[in-house]
Amino acid sequence: MSRRRTERLIVTTVTPEGARRSPDRLIVEEPMTVQLDGVTVATTMRTPGNDFELAVGFCHTEGLLDGATVEGIKYCGTGSALATEFNVVTVDTGGRAPEPTPRLGLTSSSCGWCGSDQLDELADRLAPLAGHEHIDVGVLAGMPDRVREHQQLFTDTGAVHAAAVFDRDGEVRLVREDVGRHNAVDKVVGSLLLDGALPAGDLGLFVSGRASVEMVVKAWSAGFGSMVAVSAPTALAVQAARRAGLLLAGFVSGDRMNVYAPERL
Amino acid sequence: MSRRRTERLIVTTVTPEGARRSPDRLIVEEPMTVQLDGVTVATTMRTPGNDFELAVGFCHTEGLLDGATVEGIKYCGTGSALATEFNVVTVDTGGRAPEPTPRLGLTSSSCGWCGSDQLDELADRLAPLAGHEHIDVGVLAGMPDRVREHQQLFTDTGAVHAAAVFDRDGEVRLVREDVGRHNAVDKVVGSLLLDGALPAGDLGLFVSGRASVEMVVKAWSAGFGSMVAVSAPTALAVQAARRAGLLLAGFVSGDRMNVYAPERL
Repeated sequence: MSRRRTERLIVTTVTPEGARRSPDRLIVEEPMTVQLDGVTVATTMRTPGNDFELAVGFCHTEGLLDGATVEGIKYCGTGSALATEFNVVTVDTGGRAPEPTPRLGLTSSSCGWCGSDQLDELADRLAPLAGHEHIDVGVLAGMPDRVREHQQLFTDTGAVHAAAVFDRDGEVRLVREDVGRHNAVDKVVGSLLLDGALPAGDLGLFVSGRASVEMVVKAWSAGFGSMVAVSAPTALAVQAARRAGLLLAGFVSGDRMNVYAPERL
Repeated sequence: MSRRRTERLIVTTVTPEGARRSPDRLIVEEPMTVQLDGVTVATTMRTPGNDFELAVGFCHTEGLLDGATVEGIKYCGTGSALATEFNVVTVDTGGRAPEPTPRLGLTSSSCGWCGSDQLDELADRLAPLAGHEHIDVGVLAGMPDRVREHQQLFTDTGAVHAAAVFDRDGEVRLVREDVGRHNAVDKVVGSLLLDGALPAGDLGLFVSGRASVEMVVKAWSAGFGSMVAVSAPTALAVQAARRAGLLLAGFVSGDRMNVYAPERL
């Protein structure tokens, strides 16, 4: 299977002037299976690229590593066909990560995390965040425009999410794009983990879409102080952010935004 | 757990004029587990409402029913707490649906469907579609505006997807909104199924966001002749639509759109 992130297809554009056929760039989505110490823990539809970051980031943000050091990451071909050679990634902790619990018969169409009754459990497992309550609101409000310059795949295809890491001055440190918004977050978290930069208390996380509870939990797992979403959070995402101590801003654009957590700025 | 679809929270709005605290409506997301003949087949984060449609629509679009008649659908409380009473839905076919295969250790962060190598398998299982090649392009291009009037939860919260069913005249027949775009599609498909209106060859499917391959496969499973997406499809989604015989339009707005499938209009 190709390692390309975009693919050229012939598309018919229909306007009041008529129909015209021309090539267009579309974003690639392909399955990738993540294994932890030999056990399959997830298959996700992703845009190829930064696959090791995605694999290790997923294991971290889902709480599967539990502090275990990552000793290696590699592609694990099934051997049968080139098409699948690069679609299985194995994260190796030498067995030090807890054995992943097989979720029997459970598939999830949106996330692996499942409800407000688990907030207590998360609060037990994850450290409370300091939160960026004293960060310049102008920095937060400016992030969509600053990140936009780095969204090359979005420019090419108009159909891909971005996650980005920024510092307190609003400098963009890292941007990852993916057809799945969870994947984009896992890729930036995985990159920070591989750089030894977690927990990311001094840093903020930008997401190009909405903030669901799973996105907030991923940010919490990585220890970010703030999270900026271009669009709205869900009610449960706000509950989780307030519980975590994460500064959560949404509907951020230009000179305005909503701050959902903490409850009182 | 509440049956509300939106929740009122106090939010701080920051503008150049300063900060102001006021109540805001946020979309609710809650987990719902789907069981088929007593076997758990999925847990999804969804917006409450039309849960039976979601459950049966999911089973249909994921190919789990395999033609079996649905004899009943009911909430299945765990009995332990009111909070979970309405978050497990059981679809009953009297055992006539094939036994769901437990996907051991497999979770999926975006979808349960996994790659281009499965297009052959799908083409074997699903009937080819006639496709709406002779539908008025004005009808397709007008759908976003027509559906918009019915997106009440979007008006309230700005953070929710919609799926809608339309006929060849562009009449909106059915609209469902959900925090998850797959869920919105499953709800409209479930509604059609319960009305005995599948396959939906005379109807088109509108989706408010992008068209991933899973969305196209869901449309294929329901037998729609066309699919209109406000945003872009992925490359794999286009491959699937061309294979299915589904008319797939994207970037639809006002008087223009791109037609991705069929390859030649």
